[in-house]
Amino acid sequence: MRIPLDRQSTTPLYRQVEDYLRRGIRSGSLPSETRLPASRTLARDLGLNRLTVETAYAGLEAEGLVYSRQGSGTYVAALPPGLPQTAPAADLPWPRWHQPARPGAHRSNDPAPSDLLLAAGHPDPIDLSGGAGDIRHFPADEFRKVMQGVMRRDDLAALDYGDRRGYTPLRSAIAQVTASQGLALNPEGILVTSGSQQALSLVCQVLLSPGDTVLVEAPTYASALDLFELCGVNTVGIPTDEHGMQVETLEAKIRLHHPRLIYTIPNFSNPTGACLSGARRRQLIALAGQFDIPILEDDFVGDLRYEGRAQPALKALDPGGRVIYVSTFSKMLMPGLRVGFLTADGPVYERLAEAKRVTDLTTSGLVQRALEAYVTIGRYQAFLRRSCQRYRRRRDALVSAIHQHLPSEVCFGPPQGGLFVWLRLPEGVRGDDLLPEACQRGVAFAPGSRFFVDPADGESFIRLNFACQPPEHLQEGVRRLGEVMRNSIR
Amino acid sequence: MRIPLDRQSTTPLYRQVEDYLRRGIRSGSLPSETRLPASRTLARDLGLNRLTVETAYAGLEAEGLVYSRQGSGTYVAALPPGLPQTAPAADLPWPRWHQPARPGAHRSNDPAPSDLLLAAGHPDPIDLSGGAGDIRHFPADEFRKVMQGVMRRDDLAALDYGDRRGYTPLRSAIAQVTASQGLALNPEGILVTSGSQQALSLVCQVLLSPGDTVLVEAPTYASALDLFELCGVNTVGIPTDEHGMQVETLEAKIRLHHPRLIYTIPNFSNPTGACLSGARRRQLIALAGQFDIPILEDDFVGDLRYEGRAQPALKALDPGGRVIYVSTFSKMLMPGLRVGFLTADGPVYERLAEAKRVTDLTTSGLVQRALEAYVTIGRYQAFLRRSCQRYRRRRDALVSAIHQHLPSEVCFGPPQGGLFVWLRLPEGVRGDDLLPEACQRGVAFAPGSRFFVDPADGESFIRLNFACQPPEHLQEGVRRLGEVMRNSIR
Repeated sequence: MRIPLDRQSTTPLYRQVEDYLRRGIRSGSLPSETRLPASRTLARDLGLNRLTVETAYAGLEAEGLVYSRQGSGTYVAALPPGLPQTAPAADLPWPRWHQPARPGAHRSNDPAPSDLLLAAGHPDPIDLSGGAGDIRHFPADEFRKVMQGVMRRDDLAALDYGDRRGYTPLRSAIAQVTASQGLALNPEGILVTSGSQQALSLVCQVLLSPGDTVLVEAPTYASALDLFELCGVNTVGIPTDEHGMQVETLEAKIRLHHPRLIYTIPNFSNPTGACLSGARRRQLIALAGQFDIPILEDDFVGDLRYEGRAQPALKALDPGGRVIYVSTFSKMLMPGLRVGFLTADGPVYERLAEAKRVTDLTTSGLVQRALEAYVTIGRYQAFLRRSCQRYRRRRDALVSAIHQHLPSEVCFGPPQGGLFVWLRLPEGVRGDDLLPEACQRGVAFAPGSRFFVDPADGESFIRLNFACQPPEHLQEGVRRLGEVMRNSIR
Repeated sequence: MRIPLDRQSTTPLYRQVEDYLRRGIRSGSLPSETRLPASRTLARDLGLNRLTVETAYAGLEAEGLVYSRQGSGTYVAALPPGLPQTAPAADLPWPRWHQPARPGAHRSNDPAPSDLLLAAGHPDPIDLSGGAGDIRHFPADEFRKVMQGVMRRDDLAALDYGDRRGYTPLRSAIAQVTASQGLALNPEGILVTSGSQQALSLVCQVLLSPGDTVLVEAPTYASALDLFELCGVNTVGIPTDEHGMQVETLEAKIRLHHPRLIYTIPNFSNPTGACLSGARRRQLIALAGQFDIPILEDDFVGDLRYEGRAQPALKALDPGGRVIYVSTFSKMLMPGLRVGFLTADGPVYERLAEAKRVTDLTTSGLVQRALEAYVTIGRYQAFLRRSCQRYRRRRDALVSAIHQHLPSEVCFGPPQGGLFVWLRLPEGVRGDDLLPEACQRGVAFAPGSRFFVDPADGESFIRLNFACQPPEHLQEGVRRLGEVMRNSIR
């Protein structure tokens, strides 16, 4: 036990030991029934006389903070009720470097809608604010058995560092799964990451410097905007419509802003659900080549299509090295696994792999092995098919609930896939204003302001997740939302 | 299946489908026995006539690349032996942005010693180059049962996103474990990270900008130097001796370089094994306060002490907010879990938590829950006691092997704890030159050059890990090393 002692202090050493342990006990960091080191051991560790330690222990025992058990040692006692918890020390001011050099807008200071909903304490809350699919349909039992099998099979190897690019069989499995969806990837060009968020972060780290500009869809994924802000990167929004980014406006923006990256979610965008048209895909690739700008393609739910014609991934149209493609198993399978991947061809791949190494060495090998054992093409395709059927029904339920319960001024285009419906609110109604009351009534949504570079641009929009609730909850949630909207229009 | 089609192309659509699938099959991304989508489904997805798809499938079948199974569908055939694998497309040059803007020294381009050892193909290789403890003594069976129990107990909750600061019970468990070692932490100030490497990376992200200067020990942890380099940060080395960083020289360096961070490994340093003296600890804290510079304390194996007086963590001496403390379970327990933590008081904590969120949202909840269930104070202390006994014996074995087998000109100070012995080689012998021959003879070590800001400063040093091999392997490994050294002196 490493107790700080000041041998120059006028406070006697036994007292320093006693004070230190008392603080630990009172603050709860040494909970009751913790066995303290034998006095002989602690004395040796600290270079003290054994009697000094015994005096300290005796002092604590006299206060009732510890007790001795015959022949077994000294234990922390249960804290007497009402004993004051020690406050954190020092009224010193915090060092100046604790404050950010650039005082940013701090986009994410607002509490999460889910937390607001929870805090409101409604007996039957319905959360439509989430960003993932419905994990309740994930076969956790089956996965537990797979995990168990992997730990038996691989034993200690599962607990060691693995290849920093990712467990090789998992990279092959990823290539097979994407191929079965029409995207042929080279396993050698796949880098396993801790969710797709880390993939975005690595691309930032490798390709961007503070002060650089990134073009993004307006609106786009909120945590990507947060990431760009934290990296000190400027973001410029490109307007979107029901066919995704208005690529026609892109060239002018490129000439004006000299961006170092174009970030896009071409399939079932977060938050709008829109899908980039085929013609725009080809135009985007051509512009990226013409101006030598990398495209970061975030394909977080590209496989969740419920109808309409499938569009190829930008990566599949890439004549060579223009697109860095990012995807994840989090949305489809289990968010908590934190396994995603990126793929890039050419020299930039090595730079991304090196960034991954210095960032966190590697993603948990145990989880990678379990995922590899679980994800076979057949199983993935079957799960995808079931998810598509389920989510299609839920989308239809949400759309019909909107028609039934929301004011007719609400505008939206039902998406052909993905997780979200994006609503424009009636004139004068603001999403951020609506949220607290909606939570009181037991329904949460994601206000539109979080998805725009300038939050004011999103004031009159909200995002609803239809994938994570069964139809009857969607129906009831939208009914509540309708009440709140009508109240706020009045 | 999202196959890219060009409807303006002169290549007929059936041919585009056929070509795309052929590439996938030949490259292995569509392995044999993959079931292709039903022609009706694929035609619908792609907006094609069903006949178009059937024509494409027929073409592939004629080539023997797919076969139909009565009433079941079309499957990829086993690849005939000798069929040429398609080369990656395009002889286009890579876009310019693939190359780094700052051509760095690329410290880490050398192959890892372990890989060299493997490549050398010795029948009985002995690897002394590693950076972690010996996982072979980790009770993997027990951990498997704990993991199983957690998945049963928490079911789907274990697979969902959790609190972005880390699973609350794990943060409490960490506080209890560190308290039992003499470091009282507030669980509210603990942030769970993906290994301690991520903790270092988050501190970089929050506190440093390109061009800033960081003071580090010379020598120091190689992957920290790699991280600083990738972030565009300058590193200045502070000389060390057997009592750690020469803090007496620090003030002059601070006045000269205006550093934004001091990075230190005060306990059983990587690579030297040295421990910072108590007086220098207090002086370091005082200087950090006087010049308002944050200290990043990397305590990767602080609990692995085999003898001598325990020194308090710098964090335990911190009067308030000067020290960000980083540690990990990777070295003691299982590297592959990738769970570490940092702790900070004051406003900087929130900034670090936000950086964690935008970097990878959260660390795998499943792994956090399993670790929490596994790590109780009692179990940790017992495991620590056994590890200390085992590693002490191994250190003694390595030290006696060095005396027995290495030339007497080799200098080193046996460490009081940790994992490493740091050797100065005889005059004129360079670690990097020695390594290839040593690997041929079946022993690997970490050359000193990797641990210095200027690799040339480390030429005459090597690091040996005594913790990861049993005594007889240490003995034999050092014997081989002695032969190589004598050859290189001759």
